Amino acid sequence: MIPVSEARAHLLTLVQQLETEQVPLAQAAGRVLAADLQARRDQPPFSASAMDGYAVNAAEVEQHAMFKVIGEAAAGHAFQGRAGAGQAVRIFTGAPVPEGASFVVIQEDTTRNGDLITITGAPGSNHNIRPRGGDFTDGQTVTAPKRLTPADIALLAAMNIPAIPVTRRPEIALISTGDELVMPGGTPGPDQIIASNTFGLKAMLEDLGARARILPIARDTESSLRTAFELAEGADLVVTIGGASVGDHDLVGKVAQDLGMERSFYRVAMRPGKPLMAGRMNGAAMVGLPGNPVSAMVCGHVFLAPMVRSMLGLPAPSQQHLLTAVLCAPLTANGPREHYMRANVQSGQLQAFDNQDSSLLTILAEANALLVRPPKDGARSVGDIVQYLPI
Amino acid sequence: MIPVSEARAHLLTLVQQLETEQVPLAQAAGRVLAADLQARRDQPPFSASAMDGYAVNAAEVEQHAMFKVIGEAAAGHAFQGRAGAGQAVRIFTGAPVPEGASFVVIQEDTTRNGDLITITGAPGSNHNIRPRGGDFTDGQTVTAPKRLTPADIALLAAMNIPAIPVTRRPEIALISTGDELVMPGGTPGPDQIIASNTFGLKAMLEDLGARARILPIARDTESSLRTAFELAEGADLVVTIGGASVGDHDLVGKVAQDLGMERSFYRVAMRPGKPLMAGRMNGAAMVGLPGNPVSAMVCGHVFLAPMVRSMLGLPAPSQQHLLTAVLCAPLTANGPREHYMRANVQSGQLQAFDNQDSSLLTILAEANALLVRPPKDGARSVGDIVQYLPI
Repeated sequence: MIPVSEARAHLLTLVQQLETEQVPLAQAAGRVLAADLQARRDQPPFSASAMDGYAVNAAEVEQHAMFKVIGEAAAGHAFQGRAGAGQAVRIFTGAPVPEGASFVVIQEDTTRNGDLITITGAPGSNHNIRPRGGDFTDGQTVTAPKRLTPADIALLAAMNIPAIPVTRRPEIALISTGDELVMPGGTPGPDQIIASNTFGLKAMLEDLGARARILPIARDTESSLRTAFELAEGADLVVTIGGASVGDHDLVGKVAQDLGMERSFYRVAMRPGKPLMAGRMNGAAMVGLPGNPVSAMVCGHVFLAPMVRSMLGLPAPSQQHLLTAVLCAPLTANGPREHYMRANVQSGQLQAFDNQDSSLLTILAEANALLVRPPKDGARSVGDIVQYLPI
Repeated sequence: MIPVSEARAHLLTLVQQLETEQVPLAQAAGRVLAADLQARRDQPPFSASAMDGYAVNAAEVEQHAMFKVIGEAAAGHAFQGRAGAGQAVRIFTGAPVPEGASFVVIQEDTTRNGDLITITGAPGSNHNIRPRGGDFTDGQTVTAPKRLTPADIALLAAMNIPAIPVTRRPEIALISTGDELVMPGGTPGPDQIIASNTFGLKAMLEDLGARARILPIARDTESSLRTAFELAEGADLVVTIGGASVGDHDLVGKVAQDLGMERSFYRVAMRPGKPLMAGRMNGAAMVGLPGNPVSAMVCGHVFLAPMVRSMLGLPAPSQQHLLTAVLCAPLTANGPREHYMRANVQSGQLQAFDNQDSSLLTILAEANALLVRPPKDGARSVGDIVQYLPI
């Protein structure tokens, strides 16, 4: 058996960053920026008023000072002239500050009488002017790679960048295998269950930024598996679920090998999800996950997520980044395998579910964390700091 | 000025839960479940083997016991018969446990010689059988409302529910206003800047589960604003950005009122984002946000997010749910308004940015939290516990 981090490192060698494509800014949220971008202008592009008020020369600002209003500057409409000695320009938030002015007296601090204003309040020291380039300057860089947030999108808009280079979404084909499976909406025979893993994994992988398609269920025959693999044509990653074990009915490895897969078979020291098959076949990465619903989903978080990140050009260390929480119920000692226990974390307090059977989707659906316990971790008490993967 | 929670409560009265629509299971991830669903079967639907091994009568299990193998049960292929005294059925993971058997001896604990097996290892007390209905039983409920996670999707698949009732996505129209604005990719004049708020808000609102469309920029004329409002036809929520203040150039309120809006104008005791306009117009809710980029985004998090949640049928209390972190740089006393400070939180340690000017998108894009400071909050020291909104 190999440690989880070694299996992750192996799997990461099977994929590489995908090519770059351009998307319109309005479709770039959540995508991964693939190349550095430079601002195409200063922001603000001019010294701009931060308030509604009167633009004057700072040297003349004092309580009781009086100015003649010679014009107006609004957002989008600069005052075409100069504010000289004793002169003020009526100004609104976002408007360019006129030449000669270096202070905006807020309107609440003035009284106006015809063309004349008097500073009646204490004007304070804040100029209420946003300097040119105070947010960013022409050429300033937004650095790749990063997954673009709503605030990034607003920033790239302000930088006047209408098309964004992003990494293409990985295409992932999902194949569930087994004579016992029926698609949702079907009528299962007495020995059958509903295929659920592909649906859960598709949702997970699409959250991560991939595109996933569910292929027809492969039956436990070589020809059915062969057909399924052929339908996966064009995918960057082919994921099979079930049939990756060493049981007599596990044909996936054999068929994949017949189709040219350089096959690796890993017994990973983890719970749930011990058996894992991986390799490359017809230009695609291929990973075979165990068939237990919870095992498949946990392996999705632990192994497929970093592969997707890597294809998107994001950092994907073989040692996963975990969060910490305080244990609020004790745990018995762990065995020789890294254990991903379904758990709930609220306000930094974590509790694992009592029943950790790897077939229980009801428990997984209630969990929001996988408590990660190292091999041979001793018994743990309330108050201990533990590590978890948010799910 | 009214407190933030009061403004939220007002805004929440403007919207209600939208109608329900059915979507295929494969498209339901991230959507909000609108009605309780019941499992259509037991899972597992039969007592199932949790391991590869031999199914026998538990009463006969002891080291050195010998059994005759009378058949085989694989996933999807039950053994059509009964395991009698001294008899074993070869069984694989997921297969139905045959009648008469109540224990699966794992294959590693046996040796086989032709049709005979001997229990060579210590079989332990674990039966390795998953009882019928151990995950869920026919009729078991998944309770609405909830945003469906990947694990929920897997669970609903296993329950054989192929179509899911979800709340329709809110349709939101975004109108930015102002003569100073040019769309990204355009060529701004010397007094102009690029419209960024609608792009950032669209990304944020779509993350929350809405569909947002960016309308043409409304100019600072009544007819241009009227045209924009007409283009918003069919939206559940119309959001204007800019022009919500009381300045001479702020026409939005006037035009909205002319078009039948029952208008409320709130001066909210918050920073950034003081002025807020809200009402209902032509069957839609309408909210006018301030035009400063950071103010607009912060108001999106604080006011639009709960409105979207409410339209989706999710809980949206007027008092927002905040997380806590430990302050790792001191803060001066806060003024009379609730302050949403751009901040970074890492491993429970929070630091606010020095520059909190509400025009700085670069700072917002680096932030992952809004530190929420109550009105008149005193100076805070390193190590104090503070509250924040993750962004």
